[in-house]
Parts: sequence; structure tokens; C-alpha cells
Amino acid sequence: MSLVVVGSMAFDAIETPFGKTDKILGGAATYISLASSYFVEPVKAISVVGNDFEQRDIAMLEDHGVDMEGVQVKKDEKSFFWSGRYHNDMNSRDTLVTELNVLGTFDPIVPDSYQDCSYLMLGNLSPDVQRLVVERLKNRPKLVVMDTMNFWMDVALDSLHDTLKLIDVLVINDEEARQLSGEYSLKKAAQKIMAMGPKYLVIKKGEHGALLFHQHEVFSAPGLPLEEVFDPTGAGDTFAGGFIGYLALTDDISFNNMKRAIIFGSALASFCVEKFGPEKLINLPQEEVDARIQQFVALSHFDLGVEA
Amino acid sequence: MSLVVVGSMAFDAIETPFGKTDKILGGAATYISLASSYFVEPVKAISVVGNDFEQRDIAMLEDHGVDMEGVQVKKDEKSFFWSGRYHNDMNSRDTLVTELNVLGTFDPIVPDSYQDCSYLMLGNLSPDVQRLVVERLKNRPKLVVMDTMNFWMDVALDSLHDTLKLIDVLVINDEEARQLSGEYSLKKAAQKIMAMGPKYLVIKKGEHGALLFHQHEVFSAPGLPLEEVFDPTGAGDTFAGGFIGYLALTDDISFNNMKRAIIFGSALASFCVEKFGPEKLINLPQEEVDARIQQFVALSHFDLGVEA
Repeated sequence: MSLVVVGSMAFDAIETPFGKTDKILGGAATYISLASSYFVEPVKAISVVGNDFEQRDIAMLEDHGVDMEGVQVKKDEKSFFWSGRYHNDMNSRDTLVTELNVLGTFDPIVPDSYQDCSYLMLGNLSPDVQRLVVERLKNRPKLVVMDTMNFWMDVALDSLHDTLKLIDVLVINDEEARQLSGEYSLKKAAQKIMAMGPKYLVIKKGEHGALLFHQHEVFSAPGLPLEEVFDPTGAGDTFAGGFIGYLALTDDISFNNMKRAIIFGSALASFCVEKFGPEKLINLPQEEVDARIQQFVALSHFDLGVEA
Repeated sequence: MSLVVVGSMAFDAIETPFGKTDKILGGAATYISLASSYFVEPVKAISVVGNDFEQRDIAMLEDHGVDMEGVQVKKDEKSFFWSGRYHNDMNSRDTLVTELNVLGTFDPIVPDSYQDCSYLMLGNLSPDVQRLVVERLKNRPKLVVMDTMNFWMDVALDSLHDTLKLIDVLVINDEEARQLSGEYSLKKAAQKIMAMGPKYLVIKKGEHGALLFHQHEVFSAPGLPLEEVFDPTGAGDTFAGGFIGYLALTDDISFNNMKRAIIFGSALASFCVEKFGPEKLINLPQEEVDARIQQFVALSHFDLGVEA
């Protein structure tokens, strides 16, 4: 089923204990689109870039089946730029530079060819812009999934609440769930957040996996223990892209299928962190994805046997 | 199969954001014995207490099938006492008082009737004392499981390494695994720790569940999202008690059965935190345990379906 992805396409400069990069391809919509391209084609992107965005990156995305019709190119401006440095534990980072550039005035355009969209992924952006995209679709998609971050809770909480009323699935991390709900217990946080609008809540916990909440059901997906996390940038977006890509492929939004979607999202995210930026997602053989999925099965499967 | 449990039987005074207790029953061997008593009887305890240990606590333990023959009562001394205050997130705590008392000169006695022991649980104690118990058993048990803590890594690392060479399964938390191995990645930490002696490593991650490592296999057990953690004291010991109790009941030390044992340990630990001290473990109907196990199945089960 048709999938539309909204978010930044940008440059990142990343420092980790393993090295540093110059400006490399980044942005939520980049990671989401690449991840979901392993499941559906085309992935219809809505974004905005500047005159510095590389033609080879556009070509690479198009090679992955990403439809760039909804990506505006601002000839006199620069692309969004973020630079950050990860601490030794890779769980925390300092932002060194944030240049909004084209993102500061982003007015999303929804091309006519995107209007048949059944699945909509709102990548992390201003909740005003996320809401505009929902409003500019003539028909409400079958499923709207949204990412956000603590920054928007700090500076645009009312707008965030307005957008939460329009969506089906919210995907945030544990710290953000605690901030948004004011509850430390993730079970209580989930109930409060689902009362704000979303029918489903996915809480990402980094190396500890992810939780999916819906009404009074809960599913816990494991985190795959890795030898090394090389660069966590984009892992959350990759997770979201795998999640919605799998749902769009299977066109099944049952709770059981959402569990599978979370495993697929987790598997793709586990690849993302193995190299700098989106590099690992650019050439990922299907056999490697399949093998990683089987690792998740082995990691979490148990049966109670005859004794229980 | 016969199970011997070694560890402290003691008093705790606990402060949490929900309230505080006077001196209540505590100690690693108390929690381990109570938890494993849901699976095997008798549980043969080795410990030491002072003249202040309550007769009603001894009677309660005996009611649960705990054999107290190996528990020395020092008529002129006091029991081990610990007091601590948990922070709001319940993941960290300050120790307010530690009085070693009888534990400072603990010379463990292994009664003749304990010599048939097939399963041995070394609760958190000085690694010297843990090793003495192994040496005082005439036949090596089928499985030796050991808990320890960062304190012993700080003050008795050489002795800890000597004891690690004698055991089969080490059960520690993620912070302790990182300290013992010097590795941040838990996958790397596990390989280094298993090279120190234990063939299996269980890493407890609190609300995030637990990992079981063996050779190149790994299993991830989920943490059950709880509305409220009332008092985390003894949860790790309860986990260990459920783990070894289930193994002793089933007398099956295959990797698949260890997975089940971890789920049973996790289920019992999830009860332990619902009330102060060991209170919840003292009267826990089997139906509640069975229902909680089914919650763990629902929490972690997924199938890949026909599409994958």
C-alpha cells in the first residue's frame, strides 16, 4: 500500500569514540525512507532541502525507490545541518551545531500523486508542520504514525497535543514518554499518552528494545546485544521506517502484525548503528535482513514445555 | 532435586518514596529460599543469624519448607543489618547503615544431610565464604549458581576470580557485568566473563528484563511493565531463587530450560517489588504465579506469520 514519509533531509556531522565524519547525508526522512524501501516501493517523500544537497544523494534515494516529487529544493538556501558528539556510552550526546536553514520556513507540499496515501509516517519535525501534512491530505490515511522529541515538548507542547489528536501510533523513547506523561512507570505513561489521542504507543528503549502498547495489551521486543555500536545516529528513524514499511507491505494493522513490524524495525535499526550515518542501509542484502530477523526470533523465543 | 542456598538472613530497614519500614526480615538467603520454595522442598539453607533473629521468621521459613539445619544462631551476637533509601526512580539507592555483625566472622557449616546437594545457589556474600561452601561439599553439585556485587569487585577481586573458576552460572546486573569485564557492550562483557569460569552468564537489567548468555547463544527475557515498583529490595535474589528453584524442580540444565527458568525467576521478582520486603512472597497463590507466567508469554510472543 502507498506510503508517504515526511521529515528532514539534511546533513549531519558526527563524532563518536570511533571517529568523526564531515557533513554526511542525514535527516529523519532519509533514514525512514531508506528503511521502508526494503518493504515498499515507491516511498513518497515530503521534505525540503537547500542548494547544497548532493545530486548523488538524490540519485541514491531514487535508486531505492524513493519518490522525490514532494521534496522541495530551495535554490537560495542551505539544507538543515546538525552536528553532535556521542559520549563513550553512546547513550547520550551533545549537540554541537544546529542550523535550521530551509527547515525554519518549511511549508510542506503534498503532490496530487501522494493523495492516495494509505500509510503516513510523520518523522520528527515541528508538530505544526506534521499537522499541516495531515490536513493537506484529502482523505485520512488508514494509519498515521508519528515521531517527535523532547524539544517539541519544551517549546511547542500545545501544538504537539493538537497533532497527537490526529494520529494513530506515536513512536518515542522512554525518556520522552516520561516527560510527555509526567509518569515514571512506562505502563502508567502509556495509559496517559494513549488518552491524548494515539491508539498505539511504541516506546523505544535503545539497547533494551521497544515496547508496544495498545489498550491493555503490551508487547516487549528485545534489543539485540551488539559487539559494538558504531554510530547511533538515525537508529530511531530507521526503526520507524522499518515499522511502517512492514505495515504498508502487509496492509495489516492488527496488534499481532504490529508486533512483527516492531521486530522488522528493530532488525533494521540494529544494522543502522553498525556504520556511520545511513551507510549500512544503502547496501543491505535481503539475506542479511532475513538472517537478522531469525536472530530476533532465537533471542526472544521460549516455550514453557510440558512441565508448566 | 536437592537444593542448597547460601546467603545472609538479616534485617533491613527500607525507605522508598511510598513509605518506610522498621527492621524487617531481609537477606539474600531469605529471598532466594522463599522464591525457590515455590518449586522445591526442602530448600536447605546455610546462613548465620544473631540472637535478635525472630522466632516467627524462622517458623515462617520452615512453613515454606526451608530446612534451617545449616543456619547457625550466634547467641551473643546480632544479625546482619542493612538500611537504605531508594531514590524517586527506584533504580538507585543510598545505603544508610551496614552492620555486618554475625556476617563478619561467618564460617559456613555444611550439615551432613546437605551433602547430597545437586543444585547450589551461592547468594551474594564474600567470595571467600562462597568458595568455602563449594569446597566443603564432598561431591560437586550438578549446577552451581552464584550472585555477587560490585562491592566484592572493589575489595576482593582476586578471591572473586578464584570463586568464579568453580561455578557454572553467574547472575549479576548490567552495571556489575560492565565493571567485572571492563567492557561497555554486554555482548563483549559476556564473552570476557565466561572466559573467567562460568559457562553461563545471566545479566539482570531491572525493568528491562534479563539476558542469558552461553557460548554464542543469547536469550533476552522481557521485563514486565509494572504500574508501580513499591520496593525493589530483594528482587534480584528472588529472581535467582526462582531461576534455580525451577532448574532444581525440572532437573534439566539445557539452554532451553534455562530460558524457562529465567521467565519463572522474572515472574517471581515482579511480585517481590509489589510490597515491602519479602511480604508478597510469603503468601503467593500458585494461580497468581501461573497467571503472571502467562503474562510473560503474551508480553514476548510473536510469530512471523506467512509473509516472512
